[in-house]
Amino acid sequence: MSLTTAVSTRYELYYWPEIQGRGEFVRLAFEEAGVPYVDVARQPEEAGGGVAAMMGFLQGKQPGMVPFAPPFLKFGALVIAQTSNILQFLAPRLGLVPADEASRLRAHQIMLTIADLVLESHDVHHPIASSLYYQDQTEEARRRAPHFLGQRTSKFLGYLERLLERDGHLVGEATSYVDLAAFQVVAGLRYAFPKAMVEIERALPRLTALHDRVAGGTRVAAYLASERRIPFNQRGIFRHYPELDALGAAS
Amino acid sequence: MSLTTAVSTRYELYYWPEIQGRGEFVRLAFEEAGVPYVDVARQPEEAGGGVAAMMGFLQGKQPGMVPFAPPFLKFGALVIAQTSNILQFLAPRLGLVPADEASRLRAHQIMLTIADLVLESHDVHHPIASSLYYQDQTEEARRRAPHFLGQRTSKFLGYLERLLERDGHLVGEATSYVDLAAFQVVAGLRYAFPKAMVEIERALPRLTALHDRVAGGTRVAAYLASERRIPFNQRGIFRHYPELDALGAAS
Repeated sequence: MSLTTAVSTRYELYYWPEIQGRGEFVRLAFEEAGVPYVDVARQPEEAGGGVAAMMGFLQGKQPGMVPFAPPFLKFGALVIAQTSNILQFLAPRLGLVPADEASRLRAHQIMLTIADLVLESHDVHHPIASSLYYQDQTEEARRRAPHFLGQRTSKFLGYLERLLERDGHLVGEATSYVDLAAFQVVAGLRYAFPKAMVEIERALPRLTALHDRVAGGTRVAAYLASERRIPFNQRGIFRHYPELDALGAAS
Repeated sequence: MSLTTAVSTRYELYYWPEIQGRGEFVRLAFEEAGVPYVDVARQPEEAGGGVAAMMGFLQGKQPGMVPFAPPFLKFGALVIAQTSNILQFLAPRLGLVPADEASRLRAHQIMLTIADLVLESHDVHHPIASSLYYQDQTEEARRRAPHFLGQRTSKFLGYLERLLERDGHLVGEATSYVDLAAFQVVAGLRYAFPKAMVEIERALPRLTALHDRVAGGTRVAAYLASERRIPFNQRGIFRHYPELDALGAAS
């Protein structure tokens, strides 16, 4: 049975198969919940997978909403794009957000703020254009990095720390998709900027503890140790360029 | 009666009082709907307004969720931040989105995509750091601008055009908050890049028509002609630097 003729009420995630990227926030939600999903572009083309299956949607060759970019989720007749939108849709179904409206608005707000940090984490190594190689914008990246690390990263992560300090949690007591996202962004920044993050995290004991708690959860720990977890690499959002890993004075 | 002791079920928008910025997407929703709202930071300090009232929330001195940044909306006990989150909350209450789940997911997805374009519209004149003056990153901005205009703007706006061509609307037949947002981003880009946008819009007849239709709506037209509409200026997200307004070859 090919992927395209399979039952339509399963969760199909479409994302680049060789990076964590934004798709990882969705993968983590499924993994934490223990809910099966198909990571379509990582399946063989002969089974209806591969990047070609993803491109069909982006090119409008499939029914339903045309996504602007991956990741997107197909569930029944719905095609849902934008990472935060996908997670907002999934979270109640996966038990990863409290039921009350205030908690859901809060969760989405924090998730969108983390998404902003993710975008800035990409643009620090691509300050001129995502279509250019890093090597063609190294000079500008070296100028942007100290601002990103010294001001932006500290401000974003400091905000999460402040919520933890003030309220004892990001969103409710149980693990939420926002906790998973906070774990992922800390993990990504540690990969990209190991030296700077040691310094930055000195002021973030609660966020560091949250990272460790999420990473140590039974299902997430099993996922991180599995082949399903694509290693961080130099093609993703978080990239390790040693020359950018410095908190030094911004210019 | 001061603002802070007024009835709590009115809509209070908190945003910088001297720019359109991200707050404008929320203002437009209220204006199109004809629903009263208080633009708190634009009210006199002696009446509980001003930037000081906004800062109180950002500094965690008020009950409820602490926003990361403006705009945020206070409605009853809820404090809701992130532009797209605010609009998603308001739209059903203001009659600016269809009732079915697929339409709401679609609307939010397009809104988040527009929000990404808005962020890139800012970063084109601030490619190194938002904390630096434009004059301190002019060289990098001049390098980024042709990529932004020639690739990114065309791609984002072309996506909206494609949805209009394929489906006849962005989200349903009636004016939605996404139509208002599409109008606003076109208007902002026209202010910032008048020459380039003439070229870019040649390929976007449906989006241009949508812009004109929104601008010509009774309530929006009255709003745009009123003092409530803050003029575009050089402190907002969309800024007009003639040296950046060129589609010329990217380097």
